[in-house]
Parts: sequence; C-alpha cells; structure tokens
Amino acid sequence: MKARIHVTLKPGVLDPQGKTIAHALGALGFESVEEVRQGKYLELDLKENDPEKARETVDEMCRKLLANTVIENYQVEIEA
Amino acid sequence: MKARIHVTLKPGVLDPQGKTIAHALGALGFESVEEVRQGKYLELDLKENDPEKARETVDEMCRKLLANTVIENYQVEIEA
Repeated sequence: MKARIHVTLKPGVLDPQGKTIAHALGALGFESVEEVRQGKYLELDLKENDPEKARETVDEMCRKLLANTVIENYQVEIEA
Repeated sequence: MKARIHVTLKPGVLDPQGKTIAHALGALGFESVEEVRQGKYLELDLKENDPEKARETVDEMCRKLLANTVIENYQVEIEA
C-alpha cells in the first residue's frame, strides 16, 4: 500500500526558501512569478492492507516525526 | 493562477534522505514501513491567466531551475 504525504508551511509562516526560489526565477527572467511556497513530498510503501489502518498509522507518523505541527500542515493520501 | 509542482527522484536513483526517514520511522516503532522516497513540492502563484501559457512557463522553470532532469522527474498541475 502506498501513502503520499504533503507537508506544507501553515499560512503566515515565513518561507525564506520559497522567497529565494521566487527571486532566482525572477533573475532568470520569469517575471510572472508572484509567490513560491516550498513544501515536502513523501512517498511511503507500507506493509499494510487495510487503508483505514494505513491512514491512521501515517497520520501518527506525521504527528510524531514527519511534520512539525506548530508551523506545518500535512495531508495524507492512501493508495491501494 | 496557481501551479503545483512535484519533483521526485527518478526510479533507481538512490535516496539517502528517504532511507534515513525510513530508518527513523522504524526506530519509532513503525514496523510496516518498507520504503520512503522524499521529493519536493512547490506551490507557485503566477500573474498569468492563460492555463496553456502558464503550463509552458512552469515547464521551462522546472527544466531551467527547479528540477535536475538528470536524476529527477517533475510533474506540473495548473489550477485556475
């Protein structure tokens, strides 16, 4: 079973890395860029056949290790 | 107009960061984890109203700056 996780900064949290990318894109001549926000994307392979249980497990992984819930949101998709 | 970009390592390219995460999850007691692959996720705000043109521009950004196409794949979604 596969899980896809997106970890993104909460709105309002400063994203210097995103700002740097936006600046670099501007310097390359991409003038239409207004804002860039950088997040993380993770693909997990799990030995687990119950989608409900997989979601619960991955949710716990996010809370314990993968996301800093003070400043980040996460979103989990489970795929058979 | 918003663009969402996923940059992922090509299959077969080693992902030491993913391996470290998998190991850390195992150490926390998540024994169902078989593999972790880490990618990047970017959200761009663009001053561009033509979805076709936005896709072309973002594709060029990926080739020029955001992805290393030797070892990485990228996927672009455009959202009005």
